Amino acid sequence: MAKPKVYDTIILGGGPAGLSAAVYMGRFLRSTLVVDAGHGRAAGHQVNENYLGFPKGVQVRRLRELGRQQAARFGVEFCDCSVTRISKEIDNFVIECGPELTLRSRQLIVATGVSDIWPAFPFVERYIGKSLFWCITCDGYKMIDREVLLLGNTDEAAITALQFLRFTPKLTLVAHPGYNAICPERLEDLKRNKIPLIEAEVTQVKGARGMVKAVQLSSGAVLKPEFLFSLYGKIPNSQLVAGLGVMLNSAGYIDIDENQQTNVPGVFAAGDVTGAHAHQIACAVHEGAMAASAANYALYPPLQRHDTDEEGPLKHEKQAA
Amino acid sequence: MAKPKVYDTIILGGGPAGLSAAVYMGRFLRSTLVVDAGHGRAAGHQVNENYLGFPKGVQVRRLRELGRQQAARFGVEFCDCSVTRISKEIDNFVIECGPELTLRSRQLIVATGVSDIWPAFPFVERYIGKSLFWCITCDGYKMIDREVLLLGNTDEAAITALQFLRFTPKLTLVAHPGYNAICPERLEDLKRNKIPLIEAEVTQVKGARGMVKAVQLSSGAVLKPEFLFSLYGKIPNSQLVAGLGVMLNSAGYIDIDENQQTNVPGVFAAGDVTGAHAHQIACAVHEGAMAASAANYALYPPLQRHDTDEEGPLKHEKQAA
Repeated sequence: MAKPKVYDTIILGGGPAGLSAAVYMGRFLRSTLVVDAGHGRAAGHQVNENYLGFPKGVQVRRLRELGRQQAARFGVEFCDCSVTRISKEIDNFVIECGPELTLRSRQLIVATGVSDIWPAFPFVERYIGKSLFWCITCDGYKMIDREVLLLGNTDEAAITALQFLRFTPKLTLVAHPGYNAICPERLEDLKRNKIPLIEAEVTQVKGARGMVKAVQLSSGAVLKPEFLFSLYGKIPNSQLVAGLGVMLNSAGYIDIDENQQTNVPGVFAAGDVTGAHAHQIACAVHEGAMAASAANYALYPPLQRHDTDEEGPLKHEKQAA
Repeated sequence: MAKPKVYDTIILGGGPAGLSAAVYMGRFLRSTLVVDAGHGRAAGHQVNENYLGFPKGVQVRRLRELGRQQAARFGVEFCDCSVTRISKEIDNFVIECGPELTLRSRQLIVATGVSDIWPAFPFVERYIGKSLFWCITCDGYKMIDREVLLLGNTDEAAITALQFLRFTPKLTLVAHPGYNAICPERLEDLKRNKIPLIEAEVTQVKGARGMVKAVQLSSGAVLKPEFLFSLYGKIPNSQLVAGLGVMLNSAGYIDIDENQQTNVPGVFAAGDVTGAHAHQIACAVHEGAMAASAANYALYPPLQRHDTDEEGPLKHEKQAA
């Protein structure tokens, strides 16, 4: 029986963090496979406007295509499938993608991102990234002087509503009745700034081509916002690697050191799935690059690693292949 | 007399870090001016191959143009000139650009980069970014199986030479006689790996259209490498702001906290000029974004800032406008 192929590095996730890591690993001449289930924020409808180099913005799906082309140029391989189980077998990681496909690597770079929690109205997916957004840094600018309906139940939702005043005064906050956890001080801030708070559920949304036209609330009211803004939060996609013993923080994000190394040797993480992280493409791309530099450095035979210089192995130029 | 204009933020430097900060500040609706002397690595000939989104690579000068177009879309202004002096006047920073032009802002984002130290042969600038490189992460891949002449005098130069073996065995290291500071262990490593070390000066280089053809050494030898690789290091362009009391580390890089804030309130820094830093475009773009997020957050009136959540103001989404 032929010996199964063992990649130097398997990258879990084909969003900006995973693809940036892939480009770097390819250019370090390490055999690299990206396993991508095609989910997540980088697979949505939205156009990113703040990642440097794209004056007209870049559709996040387009950035994925560009990133794949770029990594493929340097020999990186791709496998479009979902991972069902990850384990360790002597020196190698074993990545099972259903009963038919098992992959092996010396290292893992985990770039599995987060799963957003969406409001529960029917056909919500039609609006995501078109008139339903979740990041004020990325999309607040789109909403200058527009009518915005914010959905959320927490102090963070109230603070975001207050910060939205910079872009538009036409704001309404809707909080689930019974789940409204906004503290009295923030309720007072909302009142003083004339941001109405409605305790209700969104039962139905009407729109066309992803643009919202009308929102029906459980209270009977019908609102006509131009944008919806969800503040229900997100869940890091860290469950698969938790079984390897990878340490997570209290919110479920992967704990990493300054080199994107987890507590498990050979397992690195980058992008939205890591802790204490700004969920921006710029950050994901940088963390992917750093994870790849550290992973590449770890693959050197000891003779070619010299951790003696005072700035340590963080610097790409020193870790570099 | 008309009151002089005071920008929210002046960004010093128009490379990837400064431009990324500019895009973010523009989208936060803060009045922003980028002051750019047009020097530095981002003004060279090289094509960057590892910044995600450009499958064929991107000329670093082209990335500047794209970044300017992108920032200009969001109202950012540009001033192409050199800064001669920076001071503080009550609440504002005063940026003097020669005797004719004085600019004022509430904040500074310092993204002035580094100045590389080049080998001292005549017409060196013709080769920079074409056949003379300095970052193995960025350009090692170009040199697969090519003849490379490395120039450097330190242990770091020797380690880089050893790491270059991954790309090519055709290596020679040239160290200035009298300045060779490579320790006996690294000299032994070089010997064991059959990397010749010549103690000599480069006196002349011949080439065409930026591609090196022949190198004349002070020893009389003539070598015919395809690439030159300079390991003489670089100097951070931090002198201008040091006079404001901005703290530098022992190597002259600007000390920053996790929000890119320096010790001087209102002064942020990003990119190659900051300490403990990987000199990659991905890193500069990310640091620029973080500096802008922190700068924007600091401009909020206290009522709209709520530093109570446990993850602190680092997260773009929370600092965001």
